[in-house]
Amino acid sequence: MIEAGSTVLPRVVVIGCGFGGIEAVRVLSHAPVEVTLIDRTNHHLFQPLLYQVATGGLAAPSISAPIRHVLRRQMRAGRLTILLGDVVDIDPDRRDVVLEDGERLRYDHLVVAAGATHSYFGHDEWMPHAPGLKTLADGIEVRRRVLLAFEFAEREPPGPARDAWLTFAVIGAGPTGVELAGTMAEIAHHTLPQEFRRIDSRHAKVILIEGGPRVLAAFPEDLSARAAAQLSALGVEVRTQAKVSAIDRDGLCYESAQGTVRLDARTMIWAAGVAASPLGRILADRTGARLDRAGRVVVEPDLGLAGHPEISVVGDLAAALSHGHHTPPRPVPAVSPAAKQMGRTAAANIVRRIRGEAPQSFRYIDYGALATIGRKSAVAMVDVPVLGTLKFSGHLAWLFWLFVHIFFLIGFRNRFVVLLDWAWAYWTFARFARVVGAPERLVPRTPPSERVGGDPRSG
Amino acid sequence: MIEAGSTVLPRVVVIGCGFGGIEAVRVLSHAPVEVTLIDRTNHHLFQPLLYQVATGGLAAPSISAPIRHVLRRQMRAGRLTILLGDVVDIDPDRRDVVLEDGERLRYDHLVVAAGATHSYFGHDEWMPHAPGLKTLADGIEVRRRVLLAFEFAEREPPGPARDAWLTFAVIGAGPTGVELAGTMAEIAHHTLPQEFRRIDSRHAKVILIEGGPRVLAAFPEDLSARAAAQLSALGVEVRTQAKVSAIDRDGLCYESAQGTVRLDARTMIWAAGVAASPLGRILADRTGARLDRAGRVVVEPDLGLAGHPEISVVGDLAAALSHGHHTPPRPVPAVSPAAKQMGRTAAANIVRRIRGEAPQSFRYIDYGALATIGRKSAVAMVDVPVLGTLKFSGHLAWLFWLFVHIFFLIGFRNRFVVLLDWAWAYWTFARFARVVGAPERLVPRTPPSERVGGDPRSG
Repeated sequence: MIEAGSTVLPRVVVIGCGFGGIEAVRVLSHAPVEVTLIDRTNHHLFQPLLYQVATGGLAAPSISAPIRHVLRRQMRAGRLTILLGDVVDIDPDRRDVVLEDGERLRYDHLVVAAGATHSYFGHDEWMPHAPGLKTLADGIEVRRRVLLAFEFAEREPPGPARDAWLTFAVIGAGPTGVELAGTMAEIAHHTLPQEFRRIDSRHAKVILIEGGPRVLAAFPEDLSARAAAQLSALGVEVRTQAKVSAIDRDGLCYESAQGTVRLDARTMIWAAGVAASPLGRILADRTGARLDRAGRVVVEPDLGLAGHPEISVVGDLAAALSHGHHTPPRPVPAVSPAAKQMGRTAAANIVRRIRGEAPQSFRYIDYGALATIGRKSAVAMVDVPVLGTLKFSGHLAWLFWLFVHIFFLIGFRNRFVVLLDWAWAYWTFARFARVVGAPERLVPRTPPSERVGGDPRSG
Repeated sequence: MIEAGSTVLPRVVVIGCGFGGIEAVRVLSHAPVEVTLIDRTNHHLFQPLLYQVATGGLAAPSISAPIRHVLRRQMRAGRLTILLGDVVDIDPDRRDVVLEDGERLRYDHLVVAAGATHSYFGHDEWMPHAPGLKTLADGIEVRRRVLLAFEFAEREPPGPARDAWLTFAVIGAGPTGVELAGTMAEIAHHTLPQEFRRIDSRHAKVILIEGGPRVLAAFPEDLSARAAAQLSALGVEVRTQAKVSAIDRDGLCYESAQGTVRLDARTMIWAAGVAASPLGRILADRTGARLDRAGRVVVEPDLGLAGHPEISVVGDLAAALSHGHHTPPRPVPAVSPAAKQMGRTAAANIVRRIRGEAPQSFRYIDYGALATIGRKSAVAMVDVPVLGTLKFSGHLAWLFWLFVHIFFLIGFRNRFVVLLDWAWAYWTFARFARVVGAPERLVPRTPPSERVGGDPRSG
């Protein structure tokens, strides 16, 4: 390799280029180490806005930036290697990371920031019927299904088949589920009306199904209630205390106080469960690390593994505690600011160990929580020093949400284009990124012979 | 259907929403007819800029607009139906168009604007190795291959396998091939350098292979020569009089004055042959229409079929002649302005027939031809009344090309964002739309055991 002979520096391997991995690399780029960053894709994804790609509001490149471009300054410093690859094993004895083709990368320090994926609670057979929303490919697949559902409805005569194409179920009322449901209701009521001839898109039903007692369970009850009211105002039907028990191609069943309820829906989106990356299991097998119930790796206060301080786990894959100065340790939530902060702490601790200093415990600084509901409403909860926690909702919260999200978008160009798209969509309700390919896999399944009614244009 | 009973108006079915189909619908929207537009996708594609999507310069939604949005004013007038569907047959006796699920659409007048697809000259087995560039999905697939090739090269040790990943072959030196090759050379030389560690992207080879004696054969010889010089300046190797005779996963062979030449290239793009849509064959079988050598349907002077004046064929599917006032009939080229003009004429002739007037012959107004080569060079040939044909090249031609393309982009929003992207790319050489998913199908095939060299980091 071209760098052969020059590697006398400690070698750090970082797995994953989400918020945690990117921050770790940024901190490490100032230290005398050789860094290798590995990811399965070539881009860093701004996941908080993925629901906008899924609903045709933003183009995929607007919320994702090529890793090599994001880290171009660090690349130029000459001590960073970025590899597109899939980590299939970790060997803590040889200190090797093993890639899919057998290539091994030796490390002195390892940061595992492999994130999380969907959990279907043991029902992986639901996945093809109700995709989740984690990767850019997921976002484009959901967009495809949502937009094609209206197209297929236009092709069906009036009746149950058409109604099922016009019924959209979102499963799970966390921030992603709420954002998706609110935006889909807006599309049906404001973007698409008058664009179809045989159907009226305003008759589409958007149903948000939540197993627990309320939407946005991580928020205080009053903000939850306001979010539910805003969702209803947008036309979303919220069904709480409804536990999904079956999903097939044509719809789902859920258990509620009324017993088992069947819902015919051709478009379902899974926003309910999250499971840690399979690398957690591999780490546990190889190092004896403990996993929590969600499969996340239990880490020491400094984010290292017990017995393997040279391995750190950060972001959604870590079951970490925040060690405040005056408060007892608290679990760290699986949100992007926490992942960034963990990435920074893990990297700083590597630098400290190299210098022979003691590593520091991780302390999560909670700036609050935000969730948007539709075109101009949101709920926010912000921790302000001295003043304490501020809670607000409605238009002001939405503007705050917009500001925060655009501010944190990586790369100036994206920030500017996203703002432009938003301003445009805000005034016109138009969603420009509504393009999908030819439906190779999703085709209306009702042959005309089985249809009720029939087309007066035909035969 | 909801419009049942209201259809006393003549029914026009338009197949395809390319330049020809969209223009036909626009003209017909002013006439007392019921129009149904059918397409396999939900978007109108601005094909002249597809190579920019393929090379990561523009996001897919920037060059494609949802058909329902493009024709929203016509939709609101209440006599237009748009259907996502695949036409599998045409029945001229019953006057039915048959869709993939058996649905039949009755027509009084039919406009077939189904366009063209790639032709591999009888070698369809070459398709998976050298995709063409016609649809948005093609553009995204080519982008994926081009960007992943550099990633795979970074994963390979120095040697023939890496070199093959860094060799890009573009087959066919028409406008699309020239634009692609020029842009790919720019990416290798200006966008990517310093973003990789193990490879130097400037060592990538971009080879443009042309069977004929010169690039841009449709242009005059002097402009051809200037284009070839501009390509060389960008770092493209142009090989003319080179007829491709074999393509496999690892490269291609071509026949030249030196005999058979083998070129190892893992990324190949087909820009050589175009074949008419298979609907041409169906029309010929059902109506007795003649096809030309490229499978295009030979039409009457008014764009109707002989014996079936109620069926018109427009755009790339039509073998049409232009009937000037003072000149003998001339073949119409397969370019977008011609498709638009044919769409307008076919629609106007339907209106004339309904009014009992005689249809008019098609006359193609040629405004000239344009091809861009790289970031700021192009060749142009413009017909100006009185002055005659102006020919120019270089920076001025490029600015003219930019102006014309942005002017004709459908939808203000796209136009604005494309201009922004261009300005940004012009100053920074950055290409922001460089995101591809995880490589499920394309993986480096050389197992490390077979590799020459090996990674000093490993083992």
